[in-house]
Parts: sequence; structure tokens; C-alpha cells
Amino acid sequence: MKPTTPSYDELAGTWTRIHHFSHLQSIAGWDQAANMPPKGNEARAAALAEMAALIHRLRTDPRLGHQLATAEQEPLTALQRANLREMQRQWRASNALPERLVQQQQLATSRCEHAWRSQRPANDWAGFVENLRPVLALAREEAGLLSAQTGLSKYDAMMDRFEPGMTSAQLDSVFGEVRQWLPGLIRDVRARQASETVVNPVGPFAVHAQKALCDEVMRMLGFDFEAGRLDVSAHPFCGGVPEDVRMTTRFREDDFLGSLMGTVHETGHGRYEQNLPRDWLGQPVAHARSMALHESQSLSFEMQLGGHPGFVHRLAPLVVRAFGNQPAFEAQNLHRLMTRVKPGPIRVDADEVTYPAHIILRYEIERPLIEGDIEPEDVPALWDAKMMELLGVDTRGNYKDGPMQDVHWPQALFGYFPCYSLGAMYAAQWFAAMRRALPDLDARMGGGDLAPVFDWLRDHIWSQASLWTTDELAVRASGEALNPAHFKAHLEARYLG
Amino acid sequence: MKPTTPSYDELAGTWTRIHHFSHLQSIAGWDQAANMPPKGNEARAAALAEMAALIHRLRTDPRLGHQLATAEQEPLTALQRANLREMQRQWRASNALPERLVQQQQLATSRCEHAWRSQRPANDWAGFVENLRPVLALAREEAGLLSAQTGLSKYDAMMDRFEPGMTSAQLDSVFGEVRQWLPGLIRDVRARQASETVVNPVGPFAVHAQKALCDEVMRMLGFDFEAGRLDVSAHPFCGGVPEDVRMTTRFREDDFLGSLMGTVHETGHGRYEQNLPRDWLGQPVAHARSMALHESQSLSFEMQLGGHPGFVHRLAPLVVRAFGNQPAFEAQNLHRLMTRVKPGPIRVDADEVTYPAHIILRYEIERPLIEGDIEPEDVPALWDAKMMELLGVDTRGNYKDGPMQDVHWPQALFGYFPCYSLGAMYAAQWFAAMRRALPDLDARMGGGDLAPVFDWLRDHIWSQASLWTTDELAVRASGEALNPAHFKAHLEARYLG
Repeated sequence: MKPTTPSYDELAGTWTRIHHFSHLQSIAGWDQAANMPPKGNEARAAALAEMAALIHRLRTDPRLGHQLATAEQEPLTALQRANLREMQRQWRASNALPERLVQQQQLATSRCEHAWRSQRPANDWAGFVENLRPVLALAREEAGLLSAQTGLSKYDAMMDRFEPGMTSAQLDSVFGEVRQWLPGLIRDVRARQASETVVNPVGPFAVHAQKALCDEVMRMLGFDFEAGRLDVSAHPFCGGVPEDVRMTTRFREDDFLGSLMGTVHETGHGRYEQNLPRDWLGQPVAHARSMALHESQSLSFEMQLGGHPGFVHRLAPLVVRAFGNQPAFEAQNLHRLMTRVKPGPIRVDADEVTYPAHIILRYEIERPLIEGDIEPEDVPALWDAKMMELLGVDTRGNYKDGPMQDVHWPQALFGYFPCYSLGAMYAAQWFAAMRRALPDLDARMGGGDLAPVFDWLRDHIWSQASLWTTDELAVRASGEALNPAHFKAHLEARYLG
Repeated sequence: MKPTTPSYDELAGTWTRIHHFSHLQSIAGWDQAANMPPKGNEARAAALAEMAALIHRLRTDPRLGHQLATAEQEPLTALQRANLREMQRQWRASNALPERLVQQQQLATSRCEHAWRSQRPANDWAGFVENLRPVLALAREEAGLLSAQTGLSKYDAMMDRFEPGMTSAQLDSVFGEVRQWLPGLIRDVRARQASETVVNPVGPFAVHAQKALCDEVMRMLGFDFEAGRLDVSAHPFCGGVPEDVRMTTRFREDDFLGSLMGTVHETGHGRYEQNLPRDWLGQPVAHARSMALHESQSLSFEMQLGGHPGFVHRLAPLVVRAFGNQPAFEAQNLHRLMTRVKPGPIRVDADEVTYPAHIILRYEIERPLIEGDIEPEDVPALWDAKMMELLGVDTRGNYKDGPMQDVHWPQALFGYFPCYSLGAMYAAQWFAAMRRALPDLDARMGGGDLAPVFDWLRDHIWSQASLWTTDELAVRASGEALNPAHFKAHLEARYLG
């Protein structure tokens, strides 16, 4: 006889409803970025705010407290127990926030992001700050409420939304160490690469040919086009729902590699989503574990795999077919292009060696922003100083390639940026574990066989969804919790080995 | 001092919430048709069913009955009173239906339409009927409930959802008359056109050039691309929301005129939506009046305007620019092509003279289907017989160009088809009124000036939204309620004049 779990069943029903509403929210959000004409924004923002409020109300229904407590006592399976833990986490976080705040945030971020799309190309920092200020004010209010409820610092409470359990104390230690070895590593790699000959591709590269190439590479990487799409948006992202993954990219006629590798990045997110366990979909336990783990997948694809000679070997003929033959498309040259280390102002264009500097800079700015120690007016000067200090890049007056370059702050995603570098570190850790388990991994990848990588990721990450905490999952997958040494070792092996 | 209207204000707040949720429903529905990959359908159907149930719950909230009654006694403006009337209409219709039925319908129609997309090209009638049967069963249940509540016959109750006040008694009279003169008119027009020389365009016509031409013609017709888009779907429609109109078309490389005129048709819908009064958006009184009036706009564009020499005069150079010069693109020849009368199996490809036959056929089949007098199995034989009788077209065995050609039945839009022909009749009536008010209308249109048409439609139809009943609006706009004589006079003047 099946044990009766009435409270758990009611909870599961509620989360199925939330799942359905989140579906519409997610598709409408993707549409807002990929399709929506400008005059549609006011109505869209209002509709999404209404939906955010509804979902918030479902997650804070007073009955849930009792149901969650009662379900604890029911004879649950391990899977159900993990699901209950995730429900409780969402319930606690939601209860800290009043519906009014959730709705105001939705409106403020919709407006800010929408205006940002035209303000960024116009380098209009003053206009941008006007919209960012209410977004930040609401984020600080949220941080204060979450902090009061969790006992974490304000910034840590914000980060906990994306990477549960991560703290700025741990980040200070991890990033502090990176800050010590990174400048020297960049210098050494630059010195070694200075003597390499690299042939640059000659454009223009027609957008339709780039789109076809991206589609082909996504297929090669196992993306299921029966359950997802690739479209264009101002800021590439991977949205939609696990059953219908909506990836976006953007194209520049003078550079195909940026958009292509951006697409490889988003494909990592996409495959994680597409391979979450189908049977539990709709329940929190079926969600991707965390955003650092999500980025560990995009960076496993973009950096670990994308910078591997075996991937470039398979990529080269596709590039030739897309754009015709050029000396630059020879595999070794393509590999040199793709592993070229060169400090620059744009995070999403950065190579994997200079990338952590972009994240450290943002972390060191958004943390005091949230804690209330600095104001938006202070950002450009701090940005310029840190960019010069960390990468020797001059960004003065260039807001569009400086603090206006990312969609994250307009969207109030404060606390998200560290996930990128944590993801890069986890990705290196996964590949180290893969190599221990499969000693012939590099030989097989070198021969163009990428399947072992996908199999390992599916078994150890994708299929595990939110069954475990991040630390537990890392230990099960790789034998240890986050260990940034693998990232340093990876960079040294690839760039100085 | 502003009079207090507390009940009315609460109602308006509820309908604003409904408006926001309908926005997400509408965008997700458009996405389902225009973008969604096949594996996304199950989740989308579930999400849309959840939303349909939520909106239904909002519309049937027990508090509404009291609020509607109290608001009646409040000091309302004429606009508010019209809004209250529309709220009451929606409330009564929604209360007739249980939430369970609404949700089942959403699921059944999503599945049926999705399967239809591949079953139609495969001519798979047997497979289609399997999915249509549950859709029809639920529609009959709805018809029964609406009939019990309104006292209308089952089919009339279904039609009332699209064209409030229209009855099959009136339709029988209107269509009965058309049935009498239509065969003779088709014969006479065909005889006259037999001696005309018409040069056919020579394809193929590249899809990207067709898309660019459609965009250009939409601009010429005043469509605001800052507040809408044109995309591709299996069955063209005009969806989205007034603030963000989502039109679709489909392209065939061997025929650009079908898609172009389909786009002109949808642009009529689109301009109606884009020009509904902004100040009241979110309230029922701001909605388009009815579906016959909506079709009167699409057919004012496609038929009245699209078949006018003045329009063709402006179109011809755009066609040449899109595809290069051809003898077929000379204006007089294009006009002959666009006013060519030729019976065929496909409704959306039909000329305006044979079009009513397609509607009469569907009306005569879907009415007994809903009343329970025939079953889906009976449809093909009836279809074949009526198609032969009305148009002399043989459709035996050709289900995909027969009863499977329309998206309406898969979507349970029983009672919608008559709106097309009613719309054609109203469109003729509007242009007759325009000509009385503007004696130089044809001269101005002949010179390529389409502005008077748009101005008249904006003043008399678009801006009036749901302020009046259909009959009231028709009288205010044209001096009389529906008068099909204008349609017959229009066809005779254009085709036999």
C-alpha cells in the first residue's frame, strides 16, 4: 500500500500550479527580450508584475506553513524529502518579502532594462542612473528583509538567492587568492603568446551564415531543437522552460567568434535545462541546483570544451563551410584565436584568463552598493580605477563598455556575478574529475568524440537537479567541495603548459 | 467633487488584473503558433489551461455579483455604464461554465491544434477526428450550458460569444438570400472575365523578399511596427494585445499574392487593435466590439481597399521593387489578378465573390455539429456535397484542403465562421457610408490617397471600441443596422459594373 502523504501532496499540487504560471512568466520574459516592439513594454511590465505578485502570493499562502510542517512528519521518500527542503527554502525566502515589493521590483526592472537597451548604445549614463536608482532602492529593501530573516549580511542574503550557502567571507578568500596570482599569470601568458603568429579572420560574416553555423554547432553539442530555439536579443541569455529552452545570441558582421562562443556558452545552460529529470518537472527538486552550477555548465561548454583542441578540430570544417576558406580557419590558428588572452573592457568578450578580473571588479562594486556604502554616482570612478588596476584597461567616459555593459543590474540581479567565476572553478573541477575517471578523455576528445563529456555531465550534474546541496553535489561528483586550485591548474596547463 | 463609485472601482480593478493575465495568455498563445518547438506543447498546454482556469475564477468570483448590482446604482458616466454592461456580459457568460470545463477545453484544443499542424499536411483525417471528438464534446457541453443560461439555441449561444446578438434565424435569412443570387453572380462574373487576358506572375518568389514586401505594404497601410510585428505561423492570425499586435502570415515560394493579401487582411485587424482607445485599455469597454466588426476591418482592408484600383496603383511599384519587373506586375494586370473570380477548395485563398459560399458551407455543417444532429464522421460527405453544390469543386478524399483546412474547429471556435461574411457585408456598408460622406472618395483613392479611409474607420469604428452594441454602432456609423444589400451592390459594381 502506498503511504499517505496528504500535506506533501497538497504542496506538490501548489508547486505544479506555480510551475505553470512560471512557464508563462518565463516565455513572456523571453519574448520581451527577443521579440517585443518598444511600445509593448509598458503593458508587458504591468502584466509581468501582476504575475510576479500572483506567484509570490501562492508561495506565501498562509496554509503553506502548516502544510510544510505536517509534511515533515509524513513518510516521504528521499526524493520527496529533498523536494520538501527546496519548498521550504523558497517559502522562507518568499515570506520575507511583501507582495508590494515584488510587484514594484518587476515594474522597476522592466522599465530600467527596457530603457537600457537604447541608453547603452547612446552611452547615456545619466539617463541610466535615473532608472537604476529605484531598482537599487528596491534591491536594498529586499536585501534588508532577507538579511533580517536569514541572519546573513545584506549582500550575502542577495547572493543566497542564486547560490545557496555561498558567503562573501568565502568569496573574499577565493577571490583574494585569485587577485594574487592572476596579474602574474596574465603577464606570463601574454609574454608567451606575443611570439605566436595568429591570422585574423577577414569579414564581413553574413548574419544568416552565422546563424546557420550557430545552429550547427548547437546540434554538434547535443542541443535538442525539438525542445528549444536560438534567437537574437540585446544581451544573450538562456531562458524559457526545461521543456522549451529559449537561447539567445547577438550577431556582429565583423566578428563571428564572439557570437559563436557566446552560443556555445548558452548551449551549456540549455543542455542542463533540457536534461533535468523529466519525471519531477514542476517540482522544486527538479530545478537546476544553483546559478554557480548553471554557469559551471555554460563554462564547461564554452571554456573547458570550447578551448579544447578536440572541439576546435571539429569546429574548423564547419566554419569553412559557413564562410568559405580562409587561412585563419585552419584548426591550429582557430585554436590560437580562441585561447588568445587579451585584456579588454567587455566581460562577455573576455577570454577565460582575464574573465575573473571582470567578476572581481563587479563583486567589489555591487557588494558596497547593496550594503549602502556607495551610491550609483560612485560607480564610474570605481569602475575605471579597478579596471585599470586589474587589467590596465582605460574605460573613462566609456559607460556603454563600462558599468552599462551588463543586463544584470538593470534586472536587479545583484549577487549573481560571482556565480560566473565560481562556475568557471567548478567547471575546471568537473573536468579534473572526468580525467581521473576517464584517463583517455583528452585522446578521445582530441579525436573529436565529445560524448564522454556529455555523459559525465548528465550523470553527475544534469540528472541530479536539486537532489543535493551544492556542496553535497560537488562531493558526489568530484570527491570534494569547491576547490579553486583546479581552476588555476587548468589555466596553467592550457596557457603555460 | 468626483462622485464616489466604490463598487465600480473594485470591478475596474478586477478587470485590470484580468487584462494583465490575458496579456500573458495572448502572448504565450501567439508564441505557441509562431515559435514553439514541438516538444514544448505539453507544458504550454498545461500552463495555458492553468491560466484559463485562473481568469475564469476571477470572472466568476462570487463577490462580483453583488458588486455588479451595486455599481448599477452608482453615479456612472456613460462610458462607465457601457463598461459595466460589458462586464455583466462577460460575467454571465463565465458563470455559465464550470472551471473544470474551461481547463479541459484549453487542454483539448491545445492538443488538437498542435496535432493538426502535422496531420493536415499528411491528410490524416482519421487521426484528426480522434482529437476533434473531445474538442467537440466539450464544445457541446459549453453550448448546452450557455443555452440554458441565455435561452438561445445551442449554436446561437456559441455564436453569441463572438457576435453578441446575432442569431441563426437572422443568418438563415441573410445567407438564404445570398444562396439565391450567388451562383448566378459567380456565373456572370466568370463569363465576363473569360475574355480578359491575365498574365500570371512567374516565380519563385524568395521568402525574404516577400517578407520585406509585406512589411512595406503594412507600413503603407499605417501599421505601427513600434507596437507590433509580423511573423510566420501555419494559420495566419492577428493576436497579441492592443499595445503589441502580433500578426502572422505564411509564405509560398510559388505565390506571393496569397500571402500578401492575407497580410493586408490581418493588417485590418491589427489597425483596429492598435487604434482602440488607449485611455480605457484594460477595461472591457475598450475591447473591439465583436468579431463580425473585427472582420469588417480586415475585409475593409483586404477586399474593399485591396481590390480598389487606387490601392493596386500604389502596390504595383512595390511589387516590382521586391521581385524585379514582369509583365504581370503592370497595375491593370495586378488588379485583374487580385479580382479574379475562381471557385476553389480553400477558404483563405478564395476571392470575395466565392468566399460567402465557403462560409455558408461551414455554417451549415458546424451548426448541426453543435446541435448534436451530426457527428464528425458525417463531415467529409457533407463537405464534399456542399462544395460541389455551391462551387462545383470536387474535394473527395482531399481532407487537408477540405474540412481540415481551418484552425477554427481544432480551436473550438464554433460559431465564428459567420463573422467573416457578416464582416464582408459590414465592410461594404462602411464603404457605402464613406462614399455618401465623401463624394470624392474614389477619386482620392484612385490617386493613391488612402488616408480618408483610415480616418473614417478610426472615427466611426476603431475609436468606438465597445461603447455601443453592434447594431447601435452600425446605425451611428452608417445610418442603419446590418444591410446585406450593400454587399451585393458592391460585388455587382466591382465585377459587373
